[in-house]
Amino acid sequence: MDERLERGLRRLREIDPRQIGRIVAGVADVAPDFATHVIAFAYGDIHARPGLDLRMRQLAAVAALTAIGHAAPQLRAQIEGALNVGCTREEIVEVIMQTAIYAGFPAALAGFAAARDVFAARVRPDDIAL
Amino acid sequence: MDERLERGLRRLREIDPRQIGRIVAGVADVAPDFATHVIAFAYGDIHARPGLDLRMRQLAAVAALTAIGHAAPQLRAQIEGALNVGCTREEIVEVIMQTAIYAGFPAALAGFAAARDVFAARVRPDDIAL
Amino acid sequence: MDERLERGLRRLREIDPRQIGRIVAGVADVAPDFATHVIAFAYGDIHARPGLDLRMRQLAAVAALTAIGHAAPQLRAQIEGALNVGCTREEIVEVIMQTAIYAGFPAALAGFAAARDVFAARVRPDDIAL
Amino acid sequence: MDERLERGLRRLREIDPRQIGRIVAGVADVAPDFATHVIAFAYGDIHARPGLDLRMRQLAAVAALTAIGHAAPQLRAQIEGALNVGCTREEIVEVIMQTAIYAGFPAALAGFAAARDVFAARVRPDDIAL
Amino acid sequence: MDERLERGLRRLREIDPRQIGRIVAGVADVAPDFATHVIAFAYGDIHARPGLDLRMRQLAAVAALTAIGHAAPQLRAQIEGALNVGCTREEIVEVIMQTAIYAGFPAALAGFAAARDVFAARVRPDDIAL
Amino acid sequence: MDERLERGLRRLREIDPRQIGRIVAGVADVAPDFATHVIAFAYGDIHARPGLDLRMRQLAAVAALTAIGHAAPQLRAQIEGALNVGCTREEIVEVIMQTAIYAGFPAALAGFAAARDVFAARVRPDDIAL
Repeated sequence: MDERLERGLRRLREIDPRQIGRIVAGVADVAPDFATHVIAFAYGDIHARPGLDLRMRQLAAVAALTAIGHAAPQLRAQIEGALNVGCTREEIVEVIMQTAIYAGFPAALAGFAAARDVFAARVRPDDIAL
Repeated sequence: MDERLERGLRRLREIDPRQIGRIVAGVADVAPDFATHVIAFAYGDIHARPGLDLRMRQLAAVAALTAIGHAAPQLRAQIEGALNVGCTREEIVEVIMQTAIYAGFPAALAGFAAARDVFAARVRPDDIAL
Repeated sequence: MDERLERGLRRLREIDPRQIGRIVAGVADVAPDFATHVIAFAYGDIHARPGLDLRMRQLAAVAALTAIGHAAPQLRAQIEGALNVGCTREEIVEVIMQTAIYAGFPAALAGFAAARDVFAARVRPDDIAL
Repeated sequence: MDERLERGLRRLREIDPRQIGRIVAGVADVAPDFATHVIAFAYGDIHARPGLDLRMRQLAAVAALTAIGHAAPQLRAQIEGALNVGCTREEIVEVIMQTAIYAGFPAALAGFAAARDVFAARVRPDDIAL
Repeated sequence: MDERLERGLRRLREIDPRQIGRIVAGVADVAPDFATHVIAFAYGDIHARPGLDLRMRQLAAVAALTAIGHAAPQLRAQIEGALNVGCTREEIVEVIMQTAIYAGFPAALAGFAAARDVFAARVRPDDIAL
Repeated sequence: MDERLERGLRRLREIDPRQIGRIVAGVADVAPDFATHVIAFAYGDIHARPGLDLRMRQLAAVAALTAIGHAAPQLRAQIEGALNVGCTREEIVEVIMQTAIYAGFPAALAGFAAARDVFAARVRPDDIAL
């Protein structure tokens, strides 16, 4: 199998093995090739690079996705992944709160709503990590 | 002096003492009170909270500001602050690169341009950290 | 009748005649005049201009609305319109996938979700084309 | 009690007393301290400043939140607040319509949808004003 | 002459007569027809509507353009227009400061920079009001 | 050499051979690996896919980058690429004008400014296509 894909799958298994199925299912009807790009590029090429530990990568994802403000499914998936790799709830909440300064209070509130859903185990099947 | 302001100033001195003068000067003509809000709220209330270490706070700022895409002065200031508190160039670059996934390649390219300016000591007087 | 309005209505009939009723109904309660502006300006003044064929206008709309990231109802309506004027599903999917580069993977994923809804005939009454 | 918090509460009582409970409840599970920051900073420090009357502050909030495009809960809350302090439905609709020029027609359409919900008394418990 | 265009020109003369030449010159090389759409649609159809007074319209434009974060030329032009129709510097500064809550501190800082340029009469020939 | 990289280089040579050097130089100081990702992923994996012809891909890039509003260097590079693959100035202008509807007039004005720079051969060394 393609090395990039394999590296991406390995990384995803560390973060949240259920994400693999969700990514594949999420685009299966419309753009099945995109699942390969997500896994090989986003996880295999970028996320698996050395130089930043797994916890920091997840918190950086939470910060960026909260700032974007319209990526709730990805944000929930990354918060779940952050918990899986050992980030604390407090760290996740602090990252979201700090984002209020950069992206405004509504973005932070949407981030807290995502965190609340994940902390209450209300992740949905279409919450796809990128 | 107001406790929040003092806590914000203390935090700013840890990150980059020159930022204090830049924040005050940056809004002096138009909205001088806003400097107090930046220092007391952004640094005193939010950034100085426990629960997330200083290095991670700076990297979260880099992630969020890169994702926003139109905050180059703040991004340069936060990258400089990140170096000051012990983040490596590699960590900063990795956070910016990862943001390409969430916010697109142009946002990451603008982030790299900001990093290049800071790494080459080309910070400008109006690069104000928030 | 006003010439711009008539030109806009003519263009809308070519793209998707049901859109006319949806546009009018969508703002009837709150801002009924806005329907006239949508039809006369967006369709009569801009969309009906020569210089770009109908298929390319629809694909440009899909690209721009996917990039914006928070316009799902308009995106679904424009994807439907794109199919009506002869764009293939493949072209629509390719435009959305390419947008991942410029606007990030979450924007593309939201675009694929919109395409999936339209391809499965799940357009909703409040999906208003602009 | 803290003077900033008290000033923020006073201001919120003028705009919409139910907002106080909604703000506290909205973040209670995840980030209870954030409610204090919303009330003390957003309302006590900023919104309660002299120099701009209450009606204009609410309309500025409607303009900014419509332009952002992904802050529907906050937009609904601010539209409700605008009505409470004496803005007319017509003024609110005009502000939203004008935003189409700056932020695009989809942002304005989402703004009209928020206005329609508020005018029909369909505000939801998680519509938190900021 | 077309009634909408005339109404737009009349409105622009009230706000800032120099804007007419700037709008025409700004797009003359590339898209000369767009000047007509700006004047007839943005000013003739929308801005000249009754229901919101001229000062509020200018302040709403300042709020929306500050929130967008990447429209400095338009923001400078609208701040200048706001002064021309009788808004005070204080009102303009307050609107920008309030936007920090909704769109983040970097957006407000960029807004203050625009205000400082206008207050110091540093408007540029390519600052085109929309 | 890696097949994806080769396919990306081939595609870039069709669009604008100077882009290859600009992409490599643009990130050489800070994130040299990112040039490989741009060429292999953005051009080799995505842009070189069948299903959408080269002209449409360039116009879709123009639409998406105009809508994003803060990617002027990439927008200039893609407009230049569009001309190179046979798009007319008129088509490019029409795509930008249509984006005013979806993303607002300031985004379209910034798009026209980018087009004017390219049409006048004022592309800059840091205009990197993505």
